[in-house]
Order: sequence, then C-alpha cells, then structure tokens
Amino acid sequence: MIKKYKFGSPIDTESVVMDFPVEALNANNSRINIFDYIVQDDKVIFTYNMSDSDIIYGLGEANRGINKRGWTYRSFCSDDPCHTEEKSSLYGAHNLIIIDGSVHAGFFFDTSSEIFFDIGYTDSNVMTITAPANNLILYTIDNKDSKSITKEFRQLIGKSYIPPYWAFGYQQCRWSYMNSSEIRNVAKQHRDNNIPLDAIYLDIDYMESYKDFTINKDSFGDFEELINDMKKENIRLVPIIDAAVKIEEGYDVYEEGVKDNHFCKDKDGNNFVAGVWPGRTHFPDFFNKATRDWFGDKYSFLIDKGIDGFWNDMNEPAIFFSEDGLKNAFEHLDECKNKQLSVYEFFSMKDSILNLSNSHNDYNSFYHNIDGKNVCHMDVHNLYGYNMTRSAADAFERNYPDKRFLMHSRSSYIGMHRYSGIWTGDNQSWWSHILLSLKMMPSLNMCGFLYTGSDIGGFGCNSTRDLVLRWLALGIFTPLMRNHAALGTRNQEAYSFGDTEDFKNIINLRYSLIPHLYSEFMKAALNDDMYFKPLAFDYSDDDYARHCEDQILLGDSLMIAPVYQQNAIGRYVYLPEDMLFVKYTDNGRKICTVMPKGHHFIEVALNEVPMFIRPNTVVAFCSPALSTEELDTSKLELTGYIQSSCTATYKLYEDDGISKNYSLNNISDIVISKDSTGSITVTNATDKEILLNIY
Amino acid sequence: MIKKYKFGSPIDTESVVMDFPVEALNANNSRINIFDYIVQDDKVIFTYNMSDSDIIYGLGEANRGINKRGWTYRSFCSDDPCHTEEKSSLYGAHNLIIIDGSVHAGFFFDTSSEIFFDIGYTDSNVMTITAPANNLILYTIDNKDSKSITKEFRQLIGKSYIPPYWAFGYQQCRWSYMNSSEIRNVAKQHRDNNIPLDAIYLDIDYMESYKDFTINKDSFGDFEELINDMKKENIRLVPIIDAAVKIEEGYDVYEEGVKDNHFCKDKDGNNFVAGVWPGRTHFPDFFNKATRDWFGDKYSFLIDKGIDGFWNDMNEPAIFFSEDGLKNAFEHLDECKNKQLSVYEFFSMKDSILNLSNSHNDYNSFYHNIDGKNVCHMDVHNLYGYNMTRSAADAFERNYPDKRFLMHSRSSYIGMHRYSGIWTGDNQSWWSHILLSLKMMPSLNMCGFLYTGSDIGGFGCNSTRDLVLRWLALGIFTPLMRNHAALGTRNQEAYSFGDTEDFKNIINLRYSLIPHLYSEFMKAALNDDMYFKPLAFDYSDDDYARHCEDQILLGDSLMIAPVYQQNAIGRYVYLPEDMLFVKYTDNGRKICTVMPKGHHFIEVALNEVPMFIRPNTVVAFCSPALSTEELDTSKLELTGYIQSSCTATYKLYEDDGISKNYSLNNISDIVISKDSTGSITVTNATDKEILLNIY
Repeated sequence: MIKKYKFGSPIDTESVVMDFPVEALNANNSRINIFDYIVQDDKVIFTYNMSDSDIIYGLGEANRGINKRGWTYRSFCSDDPCHTEEKSSLYGAHNLIIIDGSVHAGFFFDTSSEIFFDIGYTDSNVMTITAPANNLILYTIDNKDSKSITKEFRQLIGKSYIPPYWAFGYQQCRWSYMNSSEIRNVAKQHRDNNIPLDAIYLDIDYMESYKDFTINKDSFGDFEELINDMKKENIRLVPIIDAAVKIEEGYDVYEEGVKDNHFCKDKDGNNFVAGVWPGRTHFPDFFNKATRDWFGDKYSFLIDKGIDGFWNDMNEPAIFFSEDGLKNAFEHLDECKNKQLSVYEFFSMKDSILNLSNSHNDYNSFYHNIDGKNVCHMDVHNLYGYNMTRSAADAFERNYPDKRFLMHSRSSYIGMHRYSGIWTGDNQSWWSHILLSLKMMPSLNMCGFLYTGSDIGGFGCNSTRDLVLRWLALGIFTPLMRNHAALGTRNQEAYSFGDTEDFKNIINLRYSLIPHLYSEFMKAALNDDMYFKPLAFDYSDDDYARHCEDQILLGDSLMIAPVYQQNAIGRYVYLPEDMLFVKYTDNGRKICTVMPKGHHFIEVALNEVPMFIRPNTVVAFCSPALSTEELDTSKLELTGYIQSSCTATYKLYEDDGISKNYSLNNISDIVISKDSTGSITVTNATDKEILLNIY
Repeated sequence: MIKKYKFGSPIDTESVVMDFPVEALNANNSRINIFDYIVQDDKVIFTYNMSDSDIIYGLGEANRGINKRGWTYRSFCSDDPCHTEEKSSLYGAHNLIIIDGSVHAGFFFDTSSEIFFDIGYTDSNVMTITAPANNLILYTIDNKDSKSITKEFRQLIGKSYIPPYWAFGYQQCRWSYMNSSEIRNVAKQHRDNNIPLDAIYLDIDYMESYKDFTINKDSFGDFEELINDMKKENIRLVPIIDAAVKIEEGYDVYEEGVKDNHFCKDKDGNNFVAGVWPGRTHFPDFFNKATRDWFGDKYSFLIDKGIDGFWNDMNEPAIFFSEDGLKNAFEHLDECKNKQLSVYEFFSMKDSILNLSNSHNDYNSFYHNIDGKNVCHMDVHNLYGYNMTRSAADAFERNYPDKRFLMHSRSSYIGMHRYSGIWTGDNQSWWSHILLSLKMMPSLNMCGFLYTGSDIGGFGCNSTRDLVLRWLALGIFTPLMRNHAALGTRNQEAYSFGDTEDFKNIINLRYSLIPHLYSEFMKAALNDDMYFKPLAFDYSDDDYARHCEDQILLGDSLMIAPVYQQNAIGRYVYLPEDMLFVKYTDNGRKICTVMPKGHHFIEVALNEVPMFIRPNTVVAFCSPALSTEELDTSKLELTGYIQSSCTATYKLYEDDGISKNYSLNNISDIVISKDSTGSITVTNATDKEILLNIY
C-alpha cells in the first residue's frame, strides 16, 4: 500500500504517474511508518534504528553494494569519473530505499533537491535521511516483501523505456573515432573477424567544434554515405548529444536559443556562461516546455540523415569552469604569486584550480524559468539531465510516434526511466568496476532503469585483454552492451588484443541469447518487473542468498556469476537451490551439469561464460549472427533442468522490435513436461522449431 | 644457483651482501637464463614468453595481485596516496621477480634507476623488462621451487631488520594528535576501555614548523614528561622524521647542513630548494657517508628524551613544488589569464598546477655527491629513502650498539630491509585496500621486508566501524600493527565507534598471539625464511592453492583468510589439506573445528577472527594483557590438530626482546605426539606451563 506525505511546497519532479491523497502530518506524532522525523531549520531528518537483519536496498546508480548499509550517499548528479569507494554521488539521483529484514517497506524521497542517506555510516545501526523540508514528497510502500514493494513502486513511477530490438546487439564506442575512415575500420575489423556488432558510437569529435546538431565536415564529410554504408552492414551509428550549446555567432542553435530565450540565466538575467567541451556555452533551460520542444526537434537534424539512436551526455550538467570561478581562481593565484608560498598556501592554490569544475558556487549562480518562476539551479539540479532526455523523447514521440529510438543518458532521476535508458557513466578499467557494475544492475532495475549497462572494458585508464574478456562475460547479459574507452587510453575493441576468437566466442553467446534476453526484458518492462534481481528477492529466506553481492538473477530462469578477479581460474558461487550449471566454452559449446544447492567453486577460463539455469525453467538459444538483423530465431534450442514430474513453461516474447506495438499479447508459451519416468513432452504454441537440451 | 651479470658501470646500490664473479655477456648469444635480451639505445630489454601455467611473483610493495601477471609496473619510488588499480608505482622499488610454472627461476634487477616490468600487459603472454643499459646488475637464481629461490635471494641480500619485542604490540597513529593532551587522551581511552596498546605515534605536528629534531613547545611543552608518563603505562611514543630540512636562519640542522655541505645541489651548485611540509627546504645528500653520520646522529635529540622508535617519511623524496616548477606554472597561468580559454587550454592550465608535485623535471634538476662524482638524482632516486633510513640505523648501531630500535620507512629499496621495516604507505579507507595489503605481505617478505604492515582502517578517506574491525582482523597478524588516519578524516581509534568490546576482543587476540607471532617472525628473520607466504609456496602442486590471492600462510602453522568485503557474513576459503578451523569469537573464546581439504564457506561475524592451523602443527596462545610489557608468557595454551600417530614440534623462540643477542639458540622445542589410540604425550624443553587444546 502506498501513502503520500508532503513537506513544504515541493517542485513537481514528474517522477510518478499515479496520484494519491496526501496524508496529514500529525504535529504530535513525528513518525511516518518506521521513521521518526524532526524538522530542523530547512531540513527534515528521518531516523530509523536498523536491526541486525535489515538489508537496505535501493539508490539505483550508487556506489558500494547491493546492500547499501555501511556508507553515506548523497543524491546530487555528479560528473565524477573516479568511482572509488569513498564517493557518495555518481551521475544519477535515485531516491528509493527498501528495508528488508525486521520490517518490509519502501520509501521514495521525491525531491528535486539534493538529499543525504546515511545508512549506518555515522552509527552502524542507524539510518538517517536528511531531506529538504520545503521540497519533499515521501511515498511509503508497505508490502510483504522487497519484490512486491519494488513492483508497487514501479507501478507508481510508470512503465520503463523500451529500446528497439537492435539495441540488444553489441555496440562499440570510443572517445573518439575521429573520422569516417576510423568508423569504417571499426566496422571492417569486426566483420573481418566475424565479431557481431550492431552499433558504433560517435563521441564528441563528430561534431564541428563540439556544437550540438552539427557535423564536422573535415572528418565526417561523407556522413550520410557513412550511415548508409554502415546500415548495409547492419551497423547503426549512435551520436552523442551534449547538454551545453556553444556560444558562437552564426551557429543556428545558439542564435535561436538566444532569440527565443531558451537559455538559463545568471543572477542578472543574462544567459549563464559555462565552460564545457565547446568552450563558452549556454545551458538550455529544459524545465521550459517550449525549450524542450525546440531542443528535442533538433535531433531530427541527425534523424533525417538516418540516425536512430542517441546518447545524452554532460547533462548533470557538467561545468568545467564558469567565468566567475575562473576570475576568482586567477585572483587567488595572483595573490599566491606575490608571496613566499607556505605549503598550506600551496595546497590552497592547488585547490583553487582543482575545485573550478562542477562547483556548488556555479550551480548556485544560475536559474531556470519554471512556470514563470525563477528557480535556482541548485533546487532542481537532479532533474536537469532527466529533462534534457525528456525533451528528446517527447520530440521522438511527437515526430516519429510509431518508432522506437535507442537513447541513454548519463544523468538521470527517477521518472526519466520512462523516456530512455542510462549507461553507468565514466567508469575505469579496474577489475573492481566489473563487480561495481554488477551490483548496480538490480538497484537500477528497482528504480525503473531496465535498459542499462556499464562501459565494458572500462572507460578511463588502460585496459588489458583479460579484463575486457571478463567484463564482456558480464556485459553479454546487460541489455545495453557497449564497449567504451576514453581518449588517450589503449584501444580495447574486441579485435585489439590478439586471439580474437575468444572475444568472438563470448559475443556470439550474446547473440545466441538475444531472443531470450529480449523476451526477459520485454516481460520485465511490460509487467513492471525486474530484469536483474538480487538473489534475495526470490530466495528471501536464504541467508546466503540474502548476503550474496556478486551473483544476480536475470529474468525468471537465469542466475549469473561472472568472474571479476584478475588471474582467477574461476570463482565461488552459491546455489540457493539445485541448478543447471551451463559453462559456455570455446566454439560455442555448452557444458551442462546439474549442481546441487550449496557452495561451489567453478573453473572458468578467459574465453568461457558461466550461467546457471534455475530448476524447471529453460533458456532459449539461437544460432549467433553478425547482427540482430541477421539473427535467425526460427530455430530455438531450449536448455534447462526439469525435475521429475515437473513442467517448465517458457514464455517467449516476440514483436517487430521497432514499432511501439509491444504488448503482453506477444507472448507465446512452450510447455515442456517431464514425467516420473523422465520422458518429456512439449507443447509449442510458437512457430519456432524447437531443439531440446533438457537435463 | 646465483649468477651475476653486469650492464654498463652500475652504481653500487649496496643491496646485496654476497659477492659473485660477473658472468661474461656473450655478444653472439643475447640470452641470459630464460630471457632474450637486446640493447637498444640506453636500455636493455629482456623478454620472456610466459607459458599459461607461469605465475610471476615478486615486486614487493606493488599494486595488484600476488601473481603479478596482467599489468605493468615501474619501479620509481612515488609519493602517490591514491592506490587505484591502474597505478604502476608505489613507494618502494623492489626489483625481484620469480617465475613459477614451466620454469623456476628468480631475477633481481639491481639498479638505482627506474625500471619497467611489463608482465603480460602489452601482450598477455609476454614479459618485457626494460632496464637501464648503463646501470644494471642482474642476478639470476635457479633453484627447484619458489620457496628455495626466495631463500637463496634472501641470503644474497642479507638478514632482515629485527625490531624490539614491544614493536609487536598494537600501535595507534593519526595525522596528527596535535598536542600532549590529545596523546594522553588516546592513551587514557585505550586504558579505560582495556584495549591493549604499546605505542602512540607523533605525526608532523609535534615538530616546530615541521623542522626535524625540534619539538613544538606550545603544544608539546611537556614532551619528556609525556614520554615518561606514557612509559609508565607501557606506551611508547614514536615520532616521525621527514627527509627534508627547513630553510630557516637560526635552525641548527639547517645551518650545520649548509656549513658542512650536507645538502643536494642544483645544476648551478647551489643547495637545491624544494617545497615540502616546512615550506622551502633542502634535501640532505644521504649518499654521502658524512651526511648520513651527521643526520643519523641527530636522532639522538629524541632518543635522549626517551624515544626508541621512529618512522621516516617523505623520503621518496616527496616534492610538493620546486621554485622552477612554480615559476613555470605561474608563467603558464599568466598566459592563460590573458586569453579566451578553450577547454583544452583550460585542461592544460589545470595540469600545470596538478603536475607541480613529484615532477620528473624536479628530480632531474638536483644532484648528489657520490664518491666525489656529481650524480643526477634521477639516476639514484630509488635509493634515497633507503639511505635516509640507513643513516639512522647506522647511527643507532654506532651510538646504541646493543639496543634494538623500532623504525620503519615509507620509501625503500631492497637492501634497506636490513636496516628497518616499512609500512605500506598512504592507503585509503577502502575495503579493496584490506585485500591489497594482504597481497603485498608475501611479496614484501620475498624481498626481505618482514617487519611491515598497512595503515589499519585506511589512512585517507573516512572509515567505518565494520571496515576497521575487518582490517584489524587482518592487522593482528602483521608484524607492524598500526591504526593510522589522515588529517580531516573521521577518528578511527578502537574506541571511536561504540561497542568498544568488539575492538578490544580482536586486539586481545593479537596480544594472545604475540609469543607465537614473535617466534615465527624471529625464526623467519634468522633463517632467511618468510613470515608470510603465498599458499603456492608450500602447496606448489595444488592449482587452487597456486591461484589463491586472498589467503596466505603465516609461519609454519597458520593460514589466514580475513573477511574483506562490506556486509559479508563470512567468506569462502580453500583448504589445501585438512586443517583446524579456529574461530576466535566474543570474550576470547575459540571455536575449533577440523575441516577437510577443499572449498568451504565460513561464517565470521564482525567481532570474530578466523584462523586455520595446519595439521600436525600447533599455535601458542597466552593470556592477553594491556601491553607487551605486561604479557605473562609463563603459561601457553597450544592449540592444534594432530593426526593419529603424528607429532607436532613447536619451536618457541624467546629472547629479551630488546638487545641484539638474538640467535637460533633461543629456540626451545615442545613436542606433542598422538599415538594411534589418540593418546597424547608432551616433551617440553621450555620453562612454560603448557595447556593443551589438541584436536
């Protein structure tokens, strides 16, 4: 059951799609559900004494574990590429928490402002949430378990974004492929090595001087021909769109924005100036519908050229520097120059430069026009990327109502999940980031972000062959499967390390699984279910499952447990019940073993992928192909483990993959029964040829 | 068998204590042992094609795994506190590698210059070592296995430093306890809570303006009284000594150094100026014996006041800025100020400030006088901290020949292990750093550094209660057991988090184990053995043991396997043979279970410590006490697992713990035999009362 509480006069985040009456706050009883709360100055502080058995889920794209206990988190969308353990803010603001233990309840702290979650950091047993007292709606959700709470929350916030079918293909990115011939080479290398690929990304250098909705004519003079040539190979190009608009006379987007008053203002009412990739820029005021419509329509500049996928970046928004910030820093440096620097003066000088980017001073110094009111950016910071992305999604809906587009955003807030996916931002080529990305997946799913994945191989720092292979072996299961690396780092495309066969083998598995993964994704999206779940959501009474942080469930049938440690020959895995261990190995072979409930060590070589199929469920495999377009799904091999006298019902979802005629009616059943003698019967309501691989 | 090869005219690092004839380099056969090599320009490049089964050990204090495969390392002593996975240099330069697999061989690349180890980074299967062609001695060690190779290497480099007995007690540090009363309070809090403690550290603020060999009279006016009061509590104070000497008229160390020409020179022959904690400083030229004698004798300023332990810091040496560096940066900033900054110009401006510290330009711009020759610092960089520490150790030997001092250093090179221990530098309060520190321990032992440990709880960033408890549960096994935290971070002393009983319980275990740990340490030091070993060193045919990166052997009887993941209820552990699982739990209880060889999940609560005792060995426990001084070792409980018809021989080492009369003659045996009926007999050559706890 959902209840709604209101503090102050909240700014409407448009995160939810259902309406509830507002519960009265009782002045004599400062308690909401399990929380005691007090209002202090402009904050409302909620406290809850956690019991030892409590696990705290939620917070979507956040640092640390699936269980968020033991750290402090701040929802403040941040362009910080160094996700070390002490960080409290990443790119998204996803203010859902679920308590699972002595009580079962979910809490959505809906606020456009920053908010702090101290989950056993200051005191191991106390959760303290510090929210703005003038700008908060709190939804409480009581239900019997975390899975039910999540489903109720997902219904509250509305259906998740659904990408086109081709977006489940493998995607390759780099900051940047600098020109058409580099793009063509990436395509050729994949095709020459028979490595499947559906998309290549265009990072900021495809633009002219980093200007949105322009093409660099020197390096991408054949842009439309390139798109067409790639499409012939069934490869899409996916350009980046940045939030900020370059200040440049003669640049249409800039001039229109100025003329029609689309940009954020500084305290004096002038268009706010921020230094970002193009140098000096203005920020579109995405909180205005007129501005959203204007900016969203601009995407057609690229759509008209044949583009049907985008990624929205720098939309926290990232600010490298502001004019005021620079001025202050230079003044401070001048002072330093003229004195005998002590070491602490030296550090203060260093900090004056280091703190120039993404500074609170800057976020406090510009304004949005929201329904005619001048609103300081700080008060709506967490909604900026959301509204940029909504501006594009609304335009797609308006201009191409029947077509799905691929889109994902770096910054996000709950509500944006209805409009696009996200990628998990600028991670690093660190082994620890394989595990971090695994842990984020179920938390993101709780918050409605189903189409998501991390930069495979790691964005920053140099990668290694083994790291990319191990990361791929996780990435083949994430709906968004993109390899991405930063400027100045080593190339990490699947053909970059030699013995390319190993890479091809793992990516082939992705393509073999696409019918299955797409089915699981669509069912999750249409049913408000999770594609990735913590083990505890299905095995809630199993203490090992409840504390498992490196295995997750995928849909109804799979448990995944990637290897994420360098030089490891395998890993430990916990089976909460008997399962079929499928070790995918060289040349697409599958070695299947029924394994008993309990703890196991499994050996997994670099070119292998471990999967576990839950009892009385099956997983569909097709033959791999070089692109989603070329996948032949008319024959499916169903692999699974069916116990004696049991039945597995496989629910295959299929649609055209591009129109919006998605519906639960597109599910067909394949029912496989094993009788007490072990004999198997199949009832197939699909048009597929079925091969059985049943244990 | 050891062979010695020489490239160029190497600077003598004084790392080894044995002499070997130099093997001829055959011009027609560019091969040494398993390596092909070529000389290119001023580099000699060694390559070896690794087989799949090869594990590469070594490199001492280095990033990543016990198995160094899959990354690239650079020996260049670096003051870099952010030990993320991509880093290739930490504080030490320990150029030993051991190949264990298709071949068994060790290689010590003895050079005062930087050297690069690409161990399967560029090509997964190729190891490439790039060394200075004019400054290298290569020792090759052929022996039957890694343990034998290590022992031979340890004999080559000479006996490891031995600290006093009290240095095995628990030690508390913080940057900084700012005055006497803070120090007194730390002592009082430990004693009031019955938490054992043997030492409190003085970080840089005990000095007057960060000047070596001074006391801040405002905050430590009662310095000698403080030392005496603490000694009454059996707590020692351990002051820091920094490498750089403040430039200040009237400061005796500075004035003597100038007068007697003890400082490094710039290219013009003036004393080189570097900005470090005190502001402008000079670096003592520790490559001169006269300078070493002079600086080393200065420690008596503190010894005379009652100090008998030191830590040497900033001795890579760390340089915050140089005059030239600052001048160039300011010039660059002035240029930036006067132009419309593009974003790449902005980044270049940022870099000009960020790169001011520890810059190669600066290391290239000052000189040492070595045997009358002017040697650029870059050519001997890795020996600087070593020689600073040697200057102190030589002085202790000269001035107090019979007494052991506690000393550990941040920077080090092999050879320095004879003079002092090291701590593993400025780590972070990250869970991943518990594991990183575990992995470093056996690698450091290979290189002779036995007295070592990491900053428990993590130095940088804020810690949490659970992190400190889990880290302590590893730290109780490391010879140096010190809790340390940085300025501006949360307090993390054992009494800082509430429920102090849990901290006390774990630290009590350390004290119960001191007779045993000291025995193991002394035997390792006197026999050139390892105190910490990778599992593979004793279980070389066991593939699981060979690839185990999160368990290590301690001495002859223990295997340790700490929990290092947040919110974990336990961990997986691999037993290469049947062992006795000892779970140390609340109130000092031990729960003992014989566990079979194989993989297990063990549950370990936050206040517990897991240990595994190898079959037919025993571990000695005494009653805990508040300090090493108060430990009563007259009664020992021997816990172990003795198989039927087997014998455990416990070799107890004891000495006075402070003089240098250490000897293998101080070992006495306790022999425990179990006959085929399970009946036990004991032959006790010690004067101890023995309690048996045999399974």
